[in-house]
Amino acid sequence: MTASNAYGQLEDRFRRLSAVQGALAVLHWDSAAMMPPGGAETRGEQIAALSVIAHELITAADIGDLLAAAETVDLDPWQAANLAEMRRLWRHATAVPPALVEALARQSHDTELTWRSARAANDFKSLAPRLQSLLDLVREAAVAKAEAFGLSLYDALLDEYEPGGRSARIDALFTELEAFLPELRARVIDTQAALPPALPQDGPFAIEAQRALADKILDVLQFDRAHGRLDVSHHPFTGGVPDDVRITTRYATSDFTRSLMGVIHETGHAQYERGLPLRWRGQPVGQARGMTMHESQSLLFEMQACRTPEFIDFLAPLVRETFGREGEAYSAANLRRIYHRVAPGLIRVDADEVCYPSHVILRYRLERAMIDGALKVADLPAAWNQGMQELLGITPPDDADGCMQDIHWPGGSFGYFPTYTMGALAAAQLFQAAVAADSGILPGIAQGDFRPLLAWLRPHVHEMGSSLTTDEILTRATGVPLGTAAFKAHLEARYLRG
Amino acid sequence: MTASNAYGQLEDRFRRLSAVQGALAVLHWDSAAMMPPGGAETRGEQIAALSVIAHELITAADIGDLLAAAETVDLDPWQAANLAEMRRLWRHATAVPPALVEALARQSHDTELTWRSARAANDFKSLAPRLQSLLDLVREAAVAKAEAFGLSLYDALLDEYEPGGRSARIDALFTELEAFLPELRARVIDTQAALPPALPQDGPFAIEAQRALADKILDVLQFDRAHGRLDVSHHPFTGGVPDDVRITTRYATSDFTRSLMGVIHETGHAQYERGLPLRWRGQPVGQARGMTMHESQSLLFEMQACRTPEFIDFLAPLVRETFGREGEAYSAANLRRIYHRVAPGLIRVDADEVCYPSHVILRYRLERAMIDGALKVADLPAAWNQGMQELLGITPPDDADGCMQDIHWPGGSFGYFPTYTMGALAAAQLFQAAVAADSGILPGIAQGDFRPLLAWLRPHVHEMGSSLTTDEILTRATGVPLGTAAFKAHLEARYLRG
Repeated sequence: MTASNAYGQLEDRFRRLSAVQGALAVLHWDSAAMMPPGGAETRGEQIAALSVIAHELITAADIGDLLAAAETVDLDPWQAANLAEMRRLWRHATAVPPALVEALARQSHDTELTWRSARAANDFKSLAPRLQSLLDLVREAAVAKAEAFGLSLYDALLDEYEPGGRSARIDALFTELEAFLPELRARVIDTQAALPPALPQDGPFAIEAQRALADKILDVLQFDRAHGRLDVSHHPFTGGVPDDVRITTRYATSDFTRSLMGVIHETGHAQYERGLPLRWRGQPVGQARGMTMHESQSLLFEMQACRTPEFIDFLAPLVRETFGREGEAYSAANLRRIYHRVAPGLIRVDADEVCYPSHVILRYRLERAMIDGALKVADLPAAWNQGMQELLGITPPDDADGCMQDIHWPGGSFGYFPTYTMGALAAAQLFQAAVAADSGILPGIAQGDFRPLLAWLRPHVHEMGSSLTTDEILTRATGVPLGTAAFKAHLEARYLRG
Repeated sequence: MTASNAYGQLEDRFRRLSAVQGALAVLHWDSAAMMPPGGAETRGEQIAALSVIAHELITAADIGDLLAAAETVDLDPWQAANLAEMRRLWRHATAVPPALVEALARQSHDTELTWRSARAANDFKSLAPRLQSLLDLVREAAVAKAEAFGLSLYDALLDEYEPGGRSARIDALFTELEAFLPELRARVIDTQAALPPALPQDGPFAIEAQRALADKILDVLQFDRAHGRLDVSHHPFTGGVPDDVRITTRYATSDFTRSLMGVIHETGHAQYERGLPLRWRGQPVGQARGMTMHESQSLLFEMQACRTPEFIDFLAPLVRETFGREGEAYSAANLRRIYHRVAPGLIRVDADEVCYPSHVILRYRLERAMIDGALKVADLPAAWNQGMQELLGITPPDDADGCMQDIHWPGGSFGYFPTYTMGALAAAQLFQAAVAADSGILPGIAQGDFRPLLAWLRPHVHEMGSSLTTDEILTRATGVPLGTAAFKAHLEARYLRG
C-alpha cells in the first residue's frame, strides 16, 4: 500500500459497503411492504447476516491504516470530505463489537415484529420484555460509543442520526420552543375557535381513488417513476437507494387528507435522495447529511410548500374531481381549515405543526431517561401518560395510541426523535430563504409547478450531500445556522395572521 | 479447531451463506417484479457485491481444512449428506476465481436487462455483443471447472444445475425420446384433426378476474399465503426462500388459460420449496435436489395433475363463474381440448408436452455447441431457425420469438435447459407411482383436494431435500431411476387413448 492509492482503495471498500447497505434497504422495504408474515424469521437472519457483513467491511483490519495513510495526501475538497465521513463511520463502527452489532440487528428485527402485533392488540405487556432487552443492548452500544468518542451516552447515539448533533444544542433549541409554543398554541386555538369550524368530508373515499390522487400529486412533485415506487406499509417511510427510492403510505377510506399529506412528506424525503450528488453515489460524502436535513426536506414539502394557500387552492379541484364530490366541504377554504387546524392530539404523525414539537420533546425526555438508566421500559406507559398531560394536556386512553404508537424504539432507534423538530426548524428556515431568493417559487406552487422550488433545493441542499455540516449547509443557504426564528415567524404568519 | 467441532463450524458458515443467498433471491425477485427501470444499475452493483461475498464465504481459506477435518468424524446420515453437499458446493466455488465470479454476476445482470429491451424491439444485433461477452465469461468458468472436476466443459456447467448430471446420460434419454416422439406427434395431430376443433374463448378476460381465479387455484393447490406471494413479472418464475416463496405470472387479456397454467406450474415449484426438510433450513442438504427434481414438481402439477380430466372438470365451473361466461366454449370438454391440443409452435413456454422436448433438444444442442466453441453468438439466429425447422417443422418469423425468447442464456444459464425435459420424465414417473400408491389422489383432484397428492409428495420427494441423488429419490419413490417409459405411456394414454 502506498499513501497515494490508499484513498482509492477506501473508495472501493466503501462502494462495496454501500452496495451491501443498499441490499439491506431493499430487504427492509420488502419486510414492511411485501413480505408475507411467515417470511419474518428467515428475513431476520438475512438482515442480521448482511448487517454483520457490513460491519466487517467497515471494521476490516486494514481500514485504520488506509485512513491514516489517505489523510497524509492532498485531496480535493470533496475527496477530503469523503475521507472525513469515512473516518466518522469507521469510528462509529469500530466502537461496537461485532457480536453486539449482530445481536442488535436480530433483537430490533424481532422487537419490531412483536410491536406490530402488540400495538394492534393494545398489549404493552407482550412488548415490554423484548423492548427492555433491546434497550439493554442499545445502552451497551451507547456505553461503548460514549467511551470511544468522549461523549455522553445519549449524544453518542444521537451522533449516528445527526452527525455532530449534541443534546446541549437540542436543549437550547427546545427551551426556546417551550418558551413560546404553549402561549402561541393557546392563541391559535382561541383564534380558530372564533372562526367557522371545518366542515366534515364524508367518506368513504375509495382507496383506488386515493391512489389515483396520490399518483397525480407524485407527478406534480416531480417524483420520477423511473427511479421510484409508491406502495403501502403499516408505518409510512422512505427507503431504497437514491436511484430507486421506495416510498410508502397507508390508506383509510374514512379520510384521504392524512394519507395524501403523508405521500407529500415521503416525496420530500425521496427528492432529497434523488438529488444527492450523482458523482458521489455509493460514497459516504454522497449520502444525506443527517436526519435533521432529511426531515427538513420532507417537512419543507409537507408543512411549508404544500400547506400554503397557493398549493391548497391548486389541490382542491383535483380532490373534487378525483372523488366526484362538490360543495363547501370540498372547497379550498375548507381544505385549508382542515390542513391548518391546530388541536392537541394523541398521535405524533397526525399532529399539526404547532403541537408536533411537544410530541418530540416528550419522546426526547423519555428516551434520554431510558438511555441514562433512569427509566425502565416497564415504567414507560405511566411516564408517557404523565408527559402527555404536562405537555399537551391530554392523557392517552391506551398504550396503542400512547407509548406504543411509534416504530422507532421497537426498531432500535434511540436518539432519532429530536431530528424531527430540528428538521421542522430547518424546513421553515430553508423555505423562507427559497421564497425570498426566487419570486417564481410560490406562483409555481400555485400552478402545481414545483420545478422552481426544486431548482433552488437541488444546489442549496440536495447536491451538497455530506460535504458540509448541517449548520454549514443552512448558513450558506439561509445566512444563519439552525434556529427557531424562522419557525416562529412561520407559525405566527400562518396561524395568527393567516 | 478440533475435528469434532469442524462440522458445527461448517454449519455456521453455510447458514450465513444461505442468508446471503436468500438476500440475493429477494433482490432478484424485486428486480423482476418490483424494481423501476432506473434502479437497474445500482441493483447490479448490489447483486455483484453479494455474489462476491457469497463466493468469499464459501471459499474462505479455512473451509478446505474444516471439510477435511469434519470428514474424519462420525456423523449421522443427514449430517454426512450435508457435509457431502458442502464439499460439492465448495469444489464448484473454488474452481472459479473471485474476479470471474464478479464479472459473471455483472455481465449476466447487464445482459439480462439488455435482453428485455432487445427482445421487445426484436433487435438481436443489440443483444449479440453482450451475449457473446457473457458467453466468453461462462466458457472461462467452464474451462476452470472442467479442469478441476475432470469433466467436459458442458458437464462442468450442467453439474451446477443437476448435481451428478452428465451429457452422456442426457444423450441416451434424448435419443430414446427422438426415437418415438416424431411419430407419436404425427399420430396425435392426425387423431386430433379428426375430432372437432377447440372452440375459441372470446376475450377480453379482465386481469382482475384472472387474478381472482389464480387466487382461488392457489388455495386449491394449498399454496400458503403466510409463506408466499403471487406477483407479475415479464418472465414467470419461482423465487424467494422456502419460508417466503415468491411466484410470478404474466396476464394477457386475450387468453386466461396460459397464465392460469403458468401459476399452477410455479405453484409446483413453490410446494417443493415449502416442503423441503424444516430441520435443515439454511443448510445445503436442506435445499432442492437439483433442477430436474424441481422441474418435476412444477410439471407434476401443471402437466400431470392439473391437465387430468378430473381437474379440468373441477376447473371449468370456476372459469365460467369467474368470467361470467356460459356455453360450449367454456365447457369442461372444450377446456380439455384447449389444454390437450398438440401443435408445433414457436415458443417453448407455450409448448404442449408432446412438442416441448423438441424445444429443449434444440437448446441443448445449441448451448453445447456454444460452450464447446463450435457456435458463435452471431451465428445463433441461423442455427436456431434451422434447428426449429428440423425438429418441429417451423421457422420463426423473427428472433424475438426465435432465439431471443428465453431469459436463460442472457441470464448466464448454460446447462440448464435439459433439466426441463428430464423433469418432465420424472414428473410422469412420480405421478404414475403416486396414483398407483394412493387411490385417493385422483378422486381428491376431482374435488379440488390436493392434500392426498401432497401427502405423497412430501415424504417421497420434498422432505428428501438433497440427502439423496435424483436417481436415488426416483428409485425409492417409483422403483426405477429416471427413464422415458412412464412419460411415453403417459403421452400415449392422454393423447392417443384419451
